[in-house]
Order: sequence, then C-alpha cells, then structure tokens
Amino acid sequence: MQTRAYAATAADKPLAPLSIERRELRDDDVLIDVSHCGICHSDIHQARGEWGNSTFPMVPGHEVIGRVARVGSNVTKFKAGDRVGIGCMVDSCRECESCRAGFEQFCEKGCAFTYNSTEMDRKTPTHGGYSQQLVATQDFVLRVPESLDPAGAAPLLCAGITTYSPLRQFGCKKGDRVGVVGLGGLGHMAVKLAAAMGANVTMLSTSPSKEADAARLGAHAFALTKDPATFTKLARSFDIIIDTVSAPHDINSYLSLLRPHGTLALVGAPPEALSVHPFALIGGNYRFAGSSIGGIRETQEMLDFCAEHKIVSDVEVIPAQKINEAYERVLKNDVRYRFVIDTATLSA
Amino acid sequence: MQTRAYAATAADKPLAPLSIERRELRDDDVLIDVSHCGICHSDIHQARGEWGNSTFPMVPGHEVIGRVARVGSNVTKFKAGDRVGIGCMVDSCRECESCRAGFEQFCEKGCAFTYNSTEMDRKTPTHGGYSQQLVATQDFVLRVPESLDPAGAAPLLCAGITTYSPLRQFGCKKGDRVGVVGLGGLGHMAVKLAAAMGANVTMLSTSPSKEADAARLGAHAFALTKDPATFTKLARSFDIIIDTVSAPHDINSYLSLLRPHGTLALVGAPPEALSVHPFALIGGNYRFAGSSIGGIRETQEMLDFCAEHKIVSDVEVIPAQKINEAYERVLKNDVRYRFVIDTATLSA
Repeated sequence: MQTRAYAATAADKPLAPLSIERRELRDDDVLIDVSHCGICHSDIHQARGEWGNSTFPMVPGHEVIGRVARVGSNVTKFKAGDRVGIGCMVDSCRECESCRAGFEQFCEKGCAFTYNSTEMDRKTPTHGGYSQQLVATQDFVLRVPESLDPAGAAPLLCAGITTYSPLRQFGCKKGDRVGVVGLGGLGHMAVKLAAAMGANVTMLSTSPSKEADAARLGAHAFALTKDPATFTKLARSFDIIIDTVSAPHDINSYLSLLRPHGTLALVGAPPEALSVHPFALIGGNYRFAGSSIGGIRETQEMLDFCAEHKIVSDVEVIPAQKINEAYERVLKNDVRYRFVIDTATLSA
Repeated sequence: MQTRAYAATAADKPLAPLSIERRELRDDDVLIDVSHCGICHSDIHQARGEWGNSTFPMVPGHEVIGRVARVGSNVTKFKAGDRVGIGCMVDSCRECESCRAGFEQFCEKGCAFTYNSTEMDRKTPTHGGYSQQLVATQDFVLRVPESLDPAGAAPLLCAGITTYSPLRQFGCKKGDRVGVVGLGGLGHMAVKLAAAMGANVTMLSTSPSKEADAARLGAHAFALTKDPATFTKLARSFDIIIDTVSAPHDINSYLSLLRPHGTLALVGAPPEALSVHPFALIGGNYRFAGSSIGGIRETQEMLDFCAEHKIVSDVEVIPAQKINEAYERVLKNDVRYRFVIDTATLSA
C-alpha cells in the first residue's frame, strides 16, 4: 500500500513529499495511522549523510505516535484504535542472548532500525515516521497511555528512553543527587525523569539563559559550567551524571563531580574521541559509561512511568512543510525542546 | 622507639639502611614485628620522586606482613603473636560518608597512606614496611590467616585487593567470562582471583612467552593482543575486563571485547590520558571504570577469600640488601611476579 511521506532523496537536498510503499500486513503486523513524529538530531545527521551510512530515498523519524488502523490475524497485543508508538527499532533477531535479555538494540545480528536501515531480510529498506502510515510487527509496537498528549509523547520514544535507561541502569532513586549536562532535547527529558524518580537534580549548563527553564522542568539547582568555581563547589556531589552534550568537552572535569563509585553516563555522541585521564577514574572508583536508547521492554516501562508521573516532552508542533526549516533551527539549538511533526499535514 | 629500615633519602639516590623512629603505643595501637614486605611498582615511582609528591627520607612498602609484638590497652581485635598485615593505608578520618561506608581510600579528608604521607595530624610522616617494626591503629590492621604463606601473602595487601575489589564491584561470579589485560604483579593476581570466583578467565597479553604461565596461574585461555585477529575473534566476549597495563594502549579495542553492559576496569595507571571514542562506549552500554585498592573491610574479606581458596602471590623473596637491584628488575618486568623483602635481613 502507498503512504504519503516526507523524504530526503539525497544528502545535499532538502526533504520533500514522496509516496512510499508499505508492506501488506503479515499475520503479526500492526498498521499504524501516524499522528505525530518527533524530529531527532540523528534524523538530520542521517538525512544529510553525515554518518556515512545513508541510503536514499530516506524517510526519517523514530519518535512515532499514532493509532492502530488494522492488525494481522495473529496480533493479540493490539486492536484497531489503540494509541501506539514506534521508537528506534522495528525488528531484531529475537533469538540471541541480547534479544532474549530485552536488549534488542544490541542484537547480535544487528537490529532493524526504524529508518535508514533494512528489515531483518537485509534487503528491504525501512522508512520512518515522517509518513502517514507505518507497518511493524507487534513485538516492536509500544502501547502509549491515552493520558499522554500524543505530540508531547512522541519524543519519549527516543529522547525519553535514552535518558530513562541510564537513570535506571545506575539505580537512580529518591534522594540521589543527579547532574544533567546540557539542556536540549535529551537534557530536558533527563531533568524531568530524574526529578520524577525522586532525585535531587542539578542542571549543568554553559548558558545562564537556561536557568529559569531548568527550574520549570524540575531541576532543584543550576550551575554554570563556564565558571571554574562550579567544579570546586560541586566536587564529589553526584551519584549519577547524565551527559547529553554532543560537542567536545572535558570529561575529566565532570568525573570530578561524582561521588565515589558514581557514574557519568554519556548519551550525547561527540563526534571525536574524548580524553580520559586514568587518575580521573581511579581516584574515586568512578565509572564512565555509554548508553544507547533502550530495549522494547524498558521503553514500555518508561512510557508507563511517564503516564504515572504525567511526563511528556516540551514540544513545538509543526506541519510537515516546515521540516527543512525546523532542521536549521535544531542546528541552532532554537527549539524548546523538540519539534514534532503533525503528520495530518502530509495530506496538504 | 627506633627500628631498622631501608629508606630513600633523595629521588636520585639508591635506598640504604636507616634507623627511624616509631611512635610509642597509643591505647588503640598495635606494634607489628614485620616479617615480609612486597615491592610494589608505586614504591619505585615514589622513591624516585616520579609522582611529584615525595618527601624524604622515605621508607616505602605497603604490602606488609608480620606478627603482633605488643598491643595498646584498648586493643581488642589483636593479641601478641597474631599474624597481621598492613596495606596501603594506616588511618583515615573514620567519620565521613566514605569512611563509614568502608571506603577509607576515598576519605573526604584524605586518608593517611602507609608511607610518603602523614598521620591524620597532617604533620607526622608515615613510613612503610621496608622496616623491622611498624605501629598502626588496630582498625587499619588486617588479620592474615595462618594458612597463608607470609611471603606470598604480602602482595595481597596491594596487588591482591586492587584486583579483588573490581571483580567484586562488577559482580564477578561463576561462569562469567573475565579478560585480564597484562600479566604482571596485578595481572597474575587477577587471574588467580577471578578463576577462584568461578569465572572463565582469558589472559590478554602482548607476549607469547606468558602463555604457559597464564595457564599455570589458572587462566582458561590465552590471546595475543598483538594479533589484530584477536579483537575480531573475541568481540563481545567478556563480562568484565581487568586492565592492569600501565603503558599507553588503545582502550577502544578492549571495550569492543565486552558483552553489552560489560565493564572494563582500569587498575593500572597509564601516565597519560586515554582516548575513548563515545561510540565505543555507547555501542554496547559499556562501562569504563577506574578502581583504587579497596577499603579495610573489603581487604579483610579478600584475605579470608584467599585463605579459603589457598591463593597467594607468586613471589621471589630477597634480602633487603637487594632492594635496589630488585627495583631495576621490576622496571624490566624481570620478576614473576612480585619481589618480597625478608625483613629479618634488615638486621644484617
């Protein structure tokens, strides 16, 4: 079946309308009428061929919200009308140790990403949520509680799980002190989620203009990282630091803000190697960790947590026709804190 | 009281005999007749002023074994004749959060190291185990099971706890796959300890000549890290890697040998910063951790574990008069795997 989409047709071309083919429903498939799709910074990297792995035409989008239109004959988990979501993955081998453990993102055969990837047949290209309909196997479809605003819920599928997962991995609990480095799409979710887990949250930012917003989002304190005194004052302060910064920065300084046995979890992806001094780790049994999205089970857990705590992303909803403009604004950090496409506008 | 010792009197002078003063016993003190003291690489760094924090004269040695000679009036934990040990610390504030949690090495006021440091008064210099007697407060004296050979037990107080602690921190258990990078003083203890915990241990070494020894120490497999194929063959293999190498090396390659959520624990201390690529961490939720010795409680636990599993260090016992020669051999990696001074020879 055909569906209207917005696609990049080459790395150096703006996105434009395109009709693409979605597969006919298999027995385990769910057909989703997409209502909203978030714009993630990684959409831009891939649409512009910046990661060297782009295939075109490409329909980006892995923060997808919609309702079930129709289900295959074996589908038991969903029925028509259910509000659902699709995150960064649409399939995996489901047999390897990682898949069985619920970490499909580390599938030994490589998972099928939602776009700029292929189905597990390694041939059929996948296309993302900048489209009116999407087909996926039920095991990779998330249940989205009706209480969540659908536009605000869209970024939970990537920015939400990317920050929720490390907070859970490193045992964030009531009374913990959590530092969040950088207030953008990821950082604003980290603040909301850590605060909802009962942590005392400090926003660590280069920009004084973010202070009021940090407080509004739930941060209990704000510290300017351009001020060297911050690193003296807050030395040995945090149980967990969620580092969302994609630009080069001095990891050793941030490690010094951890309490002994604390963890700095990197979820931003600076393009270049970071320089880590051995004593900056050894001096307090510190841990420097990376964290990549989350498995399907954990993503569902995160959505349910967000419903319980009334958490959605702060979003600016745009029509599809403004995607290219939104990309430029993302690159200038001119969004608080996520663009979400209203996919009804794809009909226009 | 006076005790015979071997001391460095300047960074550029060989160690030589020296009589030093030990304090009269306070109520909580234990006087130890030292029988053996291991030579740790850090003794050499400090005796030669390579860490920039050396004060002279310096009596090195923090792998100390002996018997209790006499105890102060409040001492309940030990009596004359008990076999005991002293590790890297002889005191700490005992009040801060780290001390109360059993991590005296991270004392907020800074612990008193066994040598090249001061008592908690920040004035009185501390002197280590290259000496016939040593006085320490009972809370920093370790009980050394009689079943352990005293010379072989000496290196447990530093090399032993330094490798035992990260294995415990990262949950080493039966069936885990553990990689040990580098076969020296630390590496040979890591192999023995991980094997005793039931792990399947692989020695990762640049030197083919170490293969037979690795097997003898308990390693189940051996892999040459000079062979690039090793990194393909062993990709995603290990739950824990204990990295004991002090020379610069490519951490990203070793991270690629971890299973998802695995930890590479650095216990060697390369002098320069290591270059860590964000994707090398994010790609598998990997953790790059530092680990520094261990607290007193954990050190006692390690000694008891070693007694239960009949583990001591492989040592070459030398008279004090050969300390300078031994230093040269340590620098050439010409020891399997630790020199231990027979301190009875200090009387000669």
